[in-house]
Amino acid sequence: MNILVDAFGGDNSPFEIVSGVVDALNESKNIFKIILLGDENILKDLLSKYQYPSDRLEIFDSKEVITNDDSPVDAIRNKKNSSLVVGLKYLNSEKEADAFISAGSTGAVLAGAVLLLKRINGINRPALAPLLPTSETNYVVLIDCGANSECKPEMLHQFAKMGEAYAKVALSLIHPRIGLLNNGVEEKKGNELTQATYKLLREDSNINFIGNAEGRDILSGNFDVIVSDGFSGNIALKSCEGTALMMFSQIKNGIKKGGIRAKIGYLLLKPVFKKLKETADYSSKGGAVLLGLQKLVIKVHGSAKSKTIKAAIFQAASLVDKNLVSKITDSIKITE
Amino acid sequence: MNILVDAFGGDNSPFEIVSGVVDALNESKNIFKIILLGDENILKDLLSKYQYPSDRLEIFDSKEVITNDDSPVDAIRNKKNSSLVVGLKYLNSEKEADAFISAGSTGAVLAGAVLLLKRINGINRPALAPLLPTSETNYVVLIDCGANSECKPEMLHQFAKMGEAYAKVALSLIHPRIGLLNNGVEEKKGNELTQATYKLLREDSNINFIGNAEGRDILSGNFDVIVSDGFSGNIALKSCEGTALMMFSQIKNGIKKGGIRAKIGYLLLKPVFKKLKETADYSSKGGAVLLGLQKLVIKVHGSAKSKTIKAAIFQAASLVDKNLVSKITDSIKITE
Repeated sequence: MNILVDAFGGDNSPFEIVSGVVDALNESKNIFKIILLGDENILKDLLSKYQYPSDRLEIFDSKEVITNDDSPVDAIRNKKNSSLVVGLKYLNSEKEADAFISAGSTGAVLAGAVLLLKRINGINRPALAPLLPTSETNYVVLIDCGANSECKPEMLHQFAKMGEAYAKVALSLIHPRIGLLNNGVEEKKGNELTQATYKLLREDSNINFIGNAEGRDILSGNFDVIVSDGFSGNIALKSCEGTALMMFSQIKNGIKKGGIRAKIGYLLLKPVFKKLKETADYSSKGGAVLLGLQKLVIKVHGSAKSKTIKAAIFQAASLVDKNLVSKITDSIKITE
Repeated sequence: MNILVDAFGGDNSPFEIVSGVVDALNESKNIFKIILLGDENILKDLLSKYQYPSDRLEIFDSKEVITNDDSPVDAIRNKKNSSLVVGLKYLNSEKEADAFISAGSTGAVLAGAVLLLKRINGINRPALAPLLPTSETNYVVLIDCGANSECKPEMLHQFAKMGEAYAKVALSLIHPRIGLLNNGVEEKKGNELTQATYKLLREDSNINFIGNAEGRDILSGNFDVIVSDGFSGNIALKSCEGTALMMFSQIKNGIKKGGIRAKIGYLLLKPVFKKLKETADYSSKGGAVLLGLQKLVIKVHGSAKSKTIKAAIFQAASLVDKNLVSKITDSIKITE
């Protein structure tokens, strides 16, 4: 299995990316090879400082870098020698390549995937699906969280099928409970899009659609997959993130102001806070999968450090090993 | 000043509503009178147990009750003797009535307000605007959080003006910072609606529009007003609520499992947690205001207890006193 890693995407590239790749190689057996994309000279220099199984690492040279300031579509069209474009073309070629991981600009990764990769037959548009923690051990798939700002009911129906296949593979579930993100639980609630989608999901007997999910249901643990257009899904995801940040900051401030009593309390509760922070930091478990393509693409957070890159590599290896793409292909075929 | 209170709306009606009304009357000077709507016999019986300035409380009899199971529009059309319909008609009549407060079904309150009340000249649709805490002392206005699932750019422009007027009055701000809820901060981000709205807001020199706000910016304290269509706003609001609930429940579980050490830590940090809970429980400060109508309507949470009802009464009295409705009317006129 060959996993492509974009060494020049994200705030901490290339140092943290290279460090994560080395860690993944050292901690794994001979399951995968890494093909690292970026400036060969810089990467060779960086790698010379590490010990790792060098027969399982290859560098594929590419000199250009796409940044957050580039217009995504223009960057894909013009920066043909960027690590992102070179990587996606490699993934799409006849060469052996199973997955591509990048911490680069979300817009550019999405634009690149849409312009350069083949979709699964029957899929209109790929969708971005992170796993969000609902407790210390459980997760929910939110699909789409930002790839498609404008959606049609048929697209959301496809997201439901892809999300279901992903939940089966990634969360080892047999009948994932699927919900439709809406502004109320009643069947008739919502805008034109969710009302029409509700009917499609209810009529599809191949999926376990259990009804509308409100914003407060996302992290409740009552759903395994939440289906949404990319605009609302993005707002929901970031609202959850923002609330968690705000609460952590308020607890911190309260402890600061609370004197010696609060400081001792904090020290005693440190394991609880540590676990809470680990749970909330879902990016440490890897990245959001871009579903609907014939190859696996994983987008990790722009601020990803080596730990996240390593996690994303193991995540990719596991999803390739479990044939995620062919399982999505089958689920689309069944209901066509 | 006369404030109408729906005694038969919400999960804890009429007991908690009556209790909140009595507390408000006892704690206030002679600023307002309360007109309580509901079954006169039941209310008289309940009130007989309390001490309060009875010259400032009037009961307006109405026998029917609208529940969450009723279809909102049908309920408004058919339950003509319900506390909600009778109250809104009273508010719309020539009688002196300045504000209406209900903890009843959101759908029914909205449908009733749209069908039975006069809008401010130039306003297409009223919008629901709660105040969300961004810290222990600061708030942000989120408008619309659920009254309008389908919106046009012109409506969002009106929401911005109404939200601005509300932030000036309720938060005592001079130039409230206005943001547009979107799936990215860059100008070109978003769906058709937010892209068109961005232009309208940027071109309006009468408001202090500072750009797009992502979900994670809502509670950041960097914005005073967040403008949104009612569908996305509802999802954002409830995503924030759900995350706070999930985090509280994880902290609680962690303390439970953490043995004696964690329990002592919790006792020492109790004041910090208490403050955090108080901040997060924004409903204890009153309700969401329905803006755009010629009279003030406040929708409090369905689970509201007496404390929230009391807070909503003082909130209504303050907003009437500060002429919120005429300030919104002026802000709409200026830019017409």
